[in-house]
Amino acid sequence: MHTLAMMGNSFGKATVCFEPQGKKIEVEHGLTLLDAARIAGVGIRSDCGGRGICGKCLVVVKDQKGLSPPSDNEVRLLSSARLKAGYRLACQSVVEGDVTVFIPPESRLEARRILAEGLSRWFELDPAVRSVRVVLAKPSLLDTTPDFERLFNALKERGLGEIKIEHELMQRLPTILREANWNVEVILWMDEEVIAVERGSGERGVYGAAVDIGTSKLVLHLVDLRSGETLSVKMAENPQLVYGEDIISRINYAAFEEGGLARLQRLVIEAINSLIEDACREAGIERDRIYEVTVVGNTAMHHIFLGYSPKQLAVAPYVAVVRRSVSVKARQLGIKVYELANVFVLPNIAGFVGADAVADVLATGIYESDNMSILIDVGTNSEVFVGNREDIVSCSTPAGPAFEGMHLEHGMKAVTGAIEKIKIDPEDFEVEYETIDGAKPVGICGSGIVDAVAELFRCGLIDERGHFKKSLNTKRLRRENDAVKFVMAWRDETATGRDITVSERDIQEVLLAKAAIRAGIAVLMKERRVKEEDIAHLYIAGSFGKYLNPESALFIGLIPDIPLDKISFVGNTAIAGAKMCLLSRNMRKIAGELSNRIRYIELTAHPDFQKEFMNALFLPHRNLSTYPTVMKHISKNKGT
Amino acid sequence: MHTLAMMGNSFGKATVCFEPQGKKIEVEHGLTLLDAARIAGVGIRSDCGGRGICGKCLVVVKDQKGLSPPSDNEVRLLSSARLKAGYRLACQSVVEGDVTVFIPPESRLEARRILAEGLSRWFELDPAVRSVRVVLAKPSLLDTTPDFERLFNALKERGLGEIKIEHELMQRLPTILREANWNVEVILWMDEEVIAVERGSGERGVYGAAVDIGTSKLVLHLVDLRSGETLSVKMAENPQLVYGEDIISRINYAAFEEGGLARLQRLVIEAINSLIEDACREAGIERDRIYEVTVVGNTAMHHIFLGYSPKQLAVAPYVAVVRRSVSVKARQLGIKVYELANVFVLPNIAGFVGADAVADVLATGIYESDNMSILIDVGTNSEVFVGNREDIVSCSTPAGPAFEGMHLEHGMKAVTGAIEKIKIDPEDFEVEYETIDGAKPVGICGSGIVDAVAELFRCGLIDERGHFKKSLNTKRLRRENDAVKFVMAWRDETATGRDITVSERDIQEVLLAKAAIRAGIAVLMKERRVKEEDIAHLYIAGSFGKYLNPESALFIGLIPDIPLDKISFVGNTAIAGAKMCLLSRNMRKIAGELSNRIRYIELTAHPDFQKEFMNALFLPHRNLSTYPTVMKHISKNKGT
Repeated sequence: MHTLAMMGNSFGKATVCFEPQGKKIEVEHGLTLLDAARIAGVGIRSDCGGRGICGKCLVVVKDQKGLSPPSDNEVRLLSSARLKAGYRLACQSVVEGDVTVFIPPESRLEARRILAEGLSRWFELDPAVRSVRVVLAKPSLLDTTPDFERLFNALKERGLGEIKIEHELMQRLPTILREANWNVEVILWMDEEVIAVERGSGERGVYGAAVDIGTSKLVLHLVDLRSGETLSVKMAENPQLVYGEDIISRINYAAFEEGGLARLQRLVIEAINSLIEDACREAGIERDRIYEVTVVGNTAMHHIFLGYSPKQLAVAPYVAVVRRSVSVKARQLGIKVYELANVFVLPNIAGFVGADAVADVLATGIYESDNMSILIDVGTNSEVFVGNREDIVSCSTPAGPAFEGMHLEHGMKAVTGAIEKIKIDPEDFEVEYETIDGAKPVGICGSGIVDAVAELFRCGLIDERGHFKKSLNTKRLRRENDAVKFVMAWRDETATGRDITVSERDIQEVLLAKAAIRAGIAVLMKERRVKEEDIAHLYIAGSFGKYLNPESALFIGLIPDIPLDKISFVGNTAIAGAKMCLLSRNMRKIAGELSNRIRYIELTAHPDFQKEFMNALFLPHRNLSTYPTVMKHISKNKGT
Repeated sequence: MHTLAMMGNSFGKATVCFEPQGKKIEVEHGLTLLDAARIAGVGIRSDCGGRGICGKCLVVVKDQKGLSPPSDNEVRLLSSARLKAGYRLACQSVVEGDVTVFIPPESRLEARRILAEGLSRWFELDPAVRSVRVVLAKPSLLDTTPDFERLFNALKERGLGEIKIEHELMQRLPTILREANWNVEVILWMDEEVIAVERGSGERGVYGAAVDIGTSKLVLHLVDLRSGETLSVKMAENPQLVYGEDIISRINYAAFEEGGLARLQRLVIEAINSLIEDACREAGIERDRIYEVTVVGNTAMHHIFLGYSPKQLAVAPYVAVVRRSVSVKARQLGIKVYELANVFVLPNIAGFVGADAVADVLATGIYESDNMSILIDVGTNSEVFVGNREDIVSCSTPAGPAFEGMHLEHGMKAVTGAIEKIKIDPEDFEVEYETIDGAKPVGICGSGIVDAVAELFRCGLIDERGHFKKSLNTKRLRRENDAVKFVMAWRDETATGRDITVSERDIQEVLLAKAAIRAGIAVLMKERRVKEEDIAHLYIAGSFGKYLNPESALFIGLIPDIPLDKISFVGNTAIAGAKMCLLSRNMRKIAGELSNRIRYIELTAHPDFQKEFMNALFLPHRNLSTYPTVMKHISKNKGT
């Protein structure tokens, strides 16, 4: 093609081969080995950003004919023995001909450890956004290639294909290129769109943010996309709380109040913008260096965030607007980062199994294990998964907010003063409790109420239907206005000056919630044809999980009767999954596959759900034979 | 994939094979053959829009086992002999199983004749925008596929791949689908983006507009994208004229005046919006049914229209912002058609060989001919092409506006009262002229001035350098303030009450303009190594061409000396090319290839240009041997 020949700049080309990866790439003369490695997608460590200071980008080149001679920095940092053995610094070695490069293990940047609360997973650092430095030949009468094609051809030489560019950026391109004297840093999204072109320095960094929109809490992680490092973590209450604590009230407000959707959307976006501002201030970076945002949330939060009416989520058959991931420009949503940054919202599975649930599965990795796992994300709505690499089934159970401490007379969130652990002496029914931060008790939070029910049952204070055995004689058990209650903390111990009690009504709330989750697990286990003994792992996600006593959870029959060492509390896997999608295109791809692959079981339409729900309303379960661990205890108690 | 199985609706599938095209497609039962043909991209005529009235969609089906029995309409419209012979109406025949369909020639819609002024070309009607009617299964508890995936799956069954959708349309999708009761018409762009979803009726039509932004004139064609028919043609002056008649003044205004670019862009877009409004009113269609706009213009007009600064076009090395075609949403530009409609701006070739020139080449088809052609688009800047299917070279010559009647003492545009034809009697030098609309003469337009110079030269009134032979005695030749002039029309004949003259200065202007074009042709012919006798066609495009006398053009040496029957005037090929891109994706593809393939020769940097220019300043040329036809005349004249 004569036109290409006319456009080509005058640099020569060389082939660089990276071992042990076996990746080959053709690059222009004049690039460093570090540049070449970045283009080839081969990870080489570099802490100083390629300035020849840190000495981390050590490589071995046996035949150095195709390289520039060692620089002063290399001579200073490497011993003469090492230099003789072929060691070089990738950032200092300039390609001048064909060369084969060996990357020793200590220099490899193959995988990054992501540490979410409670779990860690390995994956290759390969974010959707990356920066490429290009130096363009200046136009001349003999090379009048237009600005965009000049940039495009330079990117093509680095192995990139068709490239899009936003209208406004194209409008600014001529000025940017000339002000930068044709030496620019190009920010690419998914290697298919140029989202920014800046004066080439590479010093200002490339950042991203992962956001979890919980019904009650927002979490944001600010991440360095070049290193994978988390720079700042920020949390805030979801400001939509004033329009209802539960999802259904929010959906109703958004769907049926004039301007409701827009108002709720604006609230959450403003809150996210504040978190971004706080995180950037803490990390000392500029907001417009955030080039990508990933977002998870349950389907209702997802819809409201994107300005989709959640109306259909409230009425049968609970149909979402979209399942697949959604990519929208930040400015279309009003997210205050770089204006052409992309906001990637993870895919969901169904009306009540949202992007946060996909993130849970992604973060725990249950989809790639041969072993069978159960994953429960406990919240206002709890999502349950049962499966392994072959097949995963999921459901959503409207467990109600009992486990978040709501709808209980003395219930509260897991904040300072909440009773989070309870022990009852089976002899004298005296109570030992622990509160968050060791403060005077204010109420009982989710993990406390699970302990309470478990202990009352273990001590024989309540029967298998959750009713107090009124024959027992203890001053802690008393009747108030027709309601039977058990005093957990006496008024003189509490911060409120009132007795903190657990009533029969409270216990019924907990039983309804646990029965919904337990029935969901049962239906899914049946669907996957697995029994308790087949379960290798049980993951409990959500902040509730952090404080839960697994023994109590098992004792009340919230989870199946499996050995306690198989239970893990994995914390906020939603944000962990969102962050993984920020750092890895492969994880993003897997998320898409999961959203298609994971089967959704609509419990209300499932023939077994009612029966399983009724069975699970018992403590621990109507079929006691499925809870041998608990049975042993009960019979032991009966024996005394 | 279990999820897909769950989503699929309950219709069966059948294979429909179209002959003689040999195209096979799998479709749902229940579609008509006309639907199937549209999906398969096989053109079948239908004037009534599939209502079984016009009888144009006649097909022959030998084995009708896979079809519904003939409808009442078919029985009424087709003779029993035809029915027996297997004739059916495609719009009435419903697919119920595998079927092979023969489309007789009279029903084929394989190609459409595009009639631009002066030329016609055949191509398959295959616009970037098409509408697809889909009837979706309603969601149920057993099929909770989200709205977008429901639509996506239906389109996938019609053979479409990944589909994008704009954020706002996704927001509106749930409401649209439910209000339409799941029976919708989907407007697709390039089969890759859903740009509109509407209540399924298909009655409202799918339209497009082609726009030519000339430096002085705007032309708009409103087109029915289903039939290819042009519904309305509108023209207007380019309102940017008040900021300078020539391109350089506009570029300077846009590049250096505060807010200049935005002002010029707004002017042209407002003018286009008026044309759209007028055209829609004339055709009786709604503006928001225009789903695609194609635009051509020279590179400066292209840049200003898109809001790109044309600054670099004014200074060496004359670099454009972009060469390839540009697609922008109409609303990003403020074009008042359907807001998510795409505006497709044709690619250009170089700073002064623009999208209009690509359209010229496309419309004349010189790129697919084995024969060698010359194509000249005469304007303020003239573009010249020389080549054939193998290779085309191009250049731009700053011919100046002399051929548009400007910069001449009595020059004017080709409007009412302009002298457009001139004959001078070689004996008594008396003048015969014709004016546009036969009105009293006001001035001389481009074709008139070419005639004038040719006639003055033919009659020996001027020499080969364009100087009057002062020795000749005629009262029409006179000196006014040191300037020698020839009177073409006496004051008592004119509308102005003044003599209309042609001065030596005017003749020099014409010579400069013609020499620039002629030198361009010469350089390109040399570059392509062709001689006069190799030229099979010479196309003259631009409105100037319509009135030009080819003999005069040859006589003054504006074009090479070739037989007159090889010369065609092809009118506004720019708008013709824009319309072809509106109606055919293939033409769009070819336009892209042409913009890459056509070599651009920068004349000012070419070693031969100066010499050729100097040679062409003579009448007809310094090397008289290259103009045997003219030589014969001159020697004949000299002989008398």
